[in-house]
Amino acid sequence: MTDLEIAKGVTLQPISSIAEKFGVNPDSIEMYGKYKAKLPLQAIDKEKAEQSNLILVSAISPTPAGEGKTTMSIGLTEGLNRLGKKTTVVLREPSLGPVFGIKGGATGGGYSQVLPMEDINLHFTGDFAAIEKAHNLLAAVIDNNIQSKTRSLRIDPRTIGWKRVMDMNDRALRDIIVGLGGTTSGVPRETGFDITAASEIMAILCLAENLSDLKERLGNIFVGYTFDKEPIYAKDLKAEGAMTALLKDAIKPNLVQTMEGNPAIIHGGPFANIAQGTNSVIATRMGMSHSEYTVTEAGFGFDLGAEKFFDIKCQSAGLKPKAVVLTATIRALKYHGGADLKSLTEPNVEALKKGLPNLEKHLENIAKFNVVPMIAINKFVTDTDEEIAVIKALADSKGIRVALVEVWAKGGEGAEDLAQHVIDVVESKASNFKPLYDWNSPVMDKIETIATEIYGAEHVDYTSRAKAHLRKITNLGLDHLPVCIAKTQKSLSDNPKLLGRPKDFIITVREIEIAVGAGFLVPITGDIMRMPGLPATPSSEGIDVNDDGEITGLF
Amino acid sequence: MTDLEIAKGVTLQPISSIAEKFGVNPDSIEMYGKYKAKLPLQAIDKEKAEQSNLILVSAISPTPAGEGKTTMSIGLTEGLNRLGKKTTVVLREPSLGPVFGIKGGATGGGYSQVLPMEDINLHFTGDFAAIEKAHNLLAAVIDNNIQSKTRSLRIDPRTIGWKRVMDMNDRALRDIIVGLGGTTSGVPRETGFDITAASEIMAILCLAENLSDLKERLGNIFVGYTFDKEPIYAKDLKAEGAMTALLKDAIKPNLVQTMEGNPAIIHGGPFANIAQGTNSVIATRMGMSHSEYTVTEAGFGFDLGAEKFFDIKCQSAGLKPKAVVLTATIRALKYHGGADLKSLTEPNVEALKKGLPNLEKHLENIAKFNVVPMIAINKFVTDTDEEIAVIKALADSKGIRVALVEVWAKGGEGAEDLAQHVIDVVESKASNFKPLYDWNSPVMDKIETIATEIYGAEHVDYTSRAKAHLRKITNLGLDHLPVCIAKTQKSLSDNPKLLGRPKDFIITVREIEIAVGAGFLVPITGDIMRMPGLPATPSSEGIDVNDDGEITGLF
Repeated sequence: MTDLEIAKGVTLQPISSIAEKFGVNPDSIEMYGKYKAKLPLQAIDKEKAEQSNLILVSAISPTPAGEGKTTMSIGLTEGLNRLGKKTTVVLREPSLGPVFGIKGGATGGGYSQVLPMEDINLHFTGDFAAIEKAHNLLAAVIDNNIQSKTRSLRIDPRTIGWKRVMDMNDRALRDIIVGLGGTTSGVPRETGFDITAASEIMAILCLAENLSDLKERLGNIFVGYTFDKEPIYAKDLKAEGAMTALLKDAIKPNLVQTMEGNPAIIHGGPFANIAQGTNSVIATRMGMSHSEYTVTEAGFGFDLGAEKFFDIKCQSAGLKPKAVVLTATIRALKYHGGADLKSLTEPNVEALKKGLPNLEKHLENIAKFNVVPMIAINKFVTDTDEEIAVIKALADSKGIRVALVEVWAKGGEGAEDLAQHVIDVVESKASNFKPLYDWNSPVMDKIETIATEIYGAEHVDYTSRAKAHLRKITNLGLDHLPVCIAKTQKSLSDNPKLLGRPKDFIITVREIEIAVGAGFLVPITGDIMRMPGLPATPSSEGIDVNDDGEITGLF
Repeated sequence: MTDLEIAKGVTLQPISSIAEKFGVNPDSIEMYGKYKAKLPLQAIDKEKAEQSNLILVSAISPTPAGEGKTTMSIGLTEGLNRLGKKTTVVLREPSLGPVFGIKGGATGGGYSQVLPMEDINLHFTGDFAAIEKAHNLLAAVIDNNIQSKTRSLRIDPRTIGWKRVMDMNDRALRDIIVGLGGTTSGVPRETGFDITAASEIMAILCLAENLSDLKERLGNIFVGYTFDKEPIYAKDLKAEGAMTALLKDAIKPNLVQTMEGNPAIIHGGPFANIAQGTNSVIATRMGMSHSEYTVTEAGFGFDLGAEKFFDIKCQSAGLKPKAVVLTATIRALKYHGGADLKSLTEPNVEALKKGLPNLEKHLENIAKFNVVPMIAINKFVTDTDEEIAVIKALADSKGIRVALVEVWAKGGEGAEDLAQHVIDVVESKASNFKPLYDWNSPVMDKIETIATEIYGAEHVDYTSRAKAHLRKITNLGLDHLPVCIAKTQKSLSDNPKLLGRPKDFIITVREIEIAVGAGFLVPITGDIMRMPGLPATPSSEGIDVNDDGEITGLF
């Protein structure tokens, strides 16, 4: 059965019942159909939130074999609820672009899904569309100001860093020229589209504390320079009010349900490879306001999403995670160890052992944040006892907890062992989160720290373009901002081909984008693209609607 | 008081109560917050719909003075309900782009509004976003196919007519080059963005009878030619299933309420100057399924929206309107008569008389469809008795009913006189709708008929580009399609500067777009743009959100 077929077999509870279970007055929610709702910001209780135990689920470096981080987060939540701990899972929203590409949905799998999966994977409650509109409104206002004879701020079109965004895998929009067609159709200039998840406004939404903080951050977006080299911000274009109006509903977290009928909150941006990547501060706090345990995730591998989660989001919002669950599959570790994608269902202890250093490196990285890690083996039917024993032996040798988890096949029942480990770790109070670096250290030091300590690089190289960007950052007085590195998810390095635990490599910073509104800098490494493309056979070809109006072919 | 302030003063009824009043089981609707809902397609009853009396509200050629067609439609609906006739107003959805430009919202005004106006004017229930995504998915799939080595259909990039769309006034996107940046980022080619309302998918959504008809039409979208000059359609790219999945909710009409608590349905596309422009067939039928009277609108002037409403939509769906209310203001007629915009509040009978021919021409046009017209004077406080008498005299001389209407200031009470006229006309059974032209006549004849009979042109000129398009249309076997002419709304001619009732002018067809999926051809006349721009001072500058999370500055 496909995930969608399994999902269709579940009888959903009305979202008002889920709201009641969550602890919010059903009259205060805004329904989007029968099974989705926006939660009111007033339901956040900062003091109560501080009492909740925040658990982060992350993963080893992802492979085409799949690791199941979201599935694990959902299954763990069901497991904790089964053990009597009131737990809410707080996830990021899927991006529409990859749904039509190769990745499929991002709502878990098998018997550990959030529902209704087809709605969540398509337009959901319109948050991405709102972010896209707010982003592109600023772009239109910028080009309109360049065009204007009477109200021009004299922005130099060549200095504009603000692109447009679209939630679509559309490589032809990466590099474009706009403003052609003569004097009535704008001023020609080079620009491009990023995918919406990479928008600075997505990051702003995810880090904003409330609506007025959101507006202030939107006003601080850096646009470019005048011909006199004066910096221009969104507030100079009086754009932040209308942008905030477009985001007034998008800022509210979305309530849905897990397959076992527990509340789930889904809000804010995916893509930790090219952006901040975790769900919103508001959503996390909302979950924590009404739960003893709050499970959240940061992907792709721990090196990307989790590092940003700890160093940017937790620092920004004062969050202190109590444990990290590192998701691994035996298939993926064999792939890291050099096994061929087609042979992963066959036993291969040798390849598994060769792949273990990837797991080890991520475990070491977690320890650097002073949070207790544990390993969750996301079990596949083809995994052998011998292979499982290899991982258990590694864990034992390091004194790290390990759980065999069957959430895909069994839902929460398959995660009870893991859930007990989580409870034990939390109750032991062994974690004492500290960030990796001080925001006030120099920009190059911050990049160097992440690259060497987390990625395991020898050192960092900068292109001449990136060096120019570093000077620009200093001139704008932005050295104090944290860094949100864009890097391939496929490797600990910036080269997607280097699997396992690469060594003696150099990280190349190609350029550095400025995201003052979000409050960070974006060093872009290697060849990572902020606008993906579709594969030769896009998954959109298999998606359809049957005569009953039901979607088919969505994974 | 602004429209938004008046709107905020109204206590809204829960949308479930409105659904009940409308005659649909509240359990069957999908709520979007407390005051918006999607109606289920199952609530359409074609037989009952045929019993409902369909009234069209249109207007004279629009001017900067404002005519108030939507306000009139809403007020008339309140008036008919006050006279004991169960009446539903069915309107098109506002486009977001102009909200940030110059036009403001499109939800009526004063005491004749549909509510919640700020939601309807912004994202509403996400229909535009869904249409935009479905449109741009096809664009991404097209460029992806060109890029593909293994699955290429050998589409000649120079023949692709399918652009991208964005619901934003963004002139810099009109003419662009995509696919720059080297071999991994697509194939360079010229293209552009239209505003979302102009998307063929908007027209398809508005003309589709149901979900399977929608999918079939999507598959029929003409994309371009192969290098061997074979036509390529969306179905050749297997895109229509995923596009339909994106539109599965957007196809359902939206239920909101009028200020006096009557049901209102808002669904489908604006912009009769550059597109089909009226609300969806599904929405009109939904309204008619549950109402004795159904009021709908077609703008800008009767020459644009109403001609398309009659010749395309009514023919396509078998609708037979019973009366046309032609909205006029004394201010606007004075403007047509040459009065200066700033002097319109001063009495000026002479200018008014000079402007009357615009009104007369629209009345003559209505008669050509064999439907009874009546004049609704949308009263302003500055109108004098003498000026009003001039219009009444004209109406008397032609035997046409006229009503003085005060819907802005008084809501439905101000339209009771007009409502009684509408009832009288319907009960007289004097209308017997017939379309202006036969779909099967040659394309040039159809264009000529509209241009001479409705616009009042001498004849039609074609650019060499338009002539090439005519040959293409014949080669593709599409001569039988009706025409949806894109023309400025500001004049009966294709020159926005010619006010009143211009004569001896020539209509120039610049190019002809093919919309096989929608089922029509789009001759584009004069300098009309399918992507508007922002004015020097965009209205976005005045839009804000206050500390209570309420939007301000939206008109």
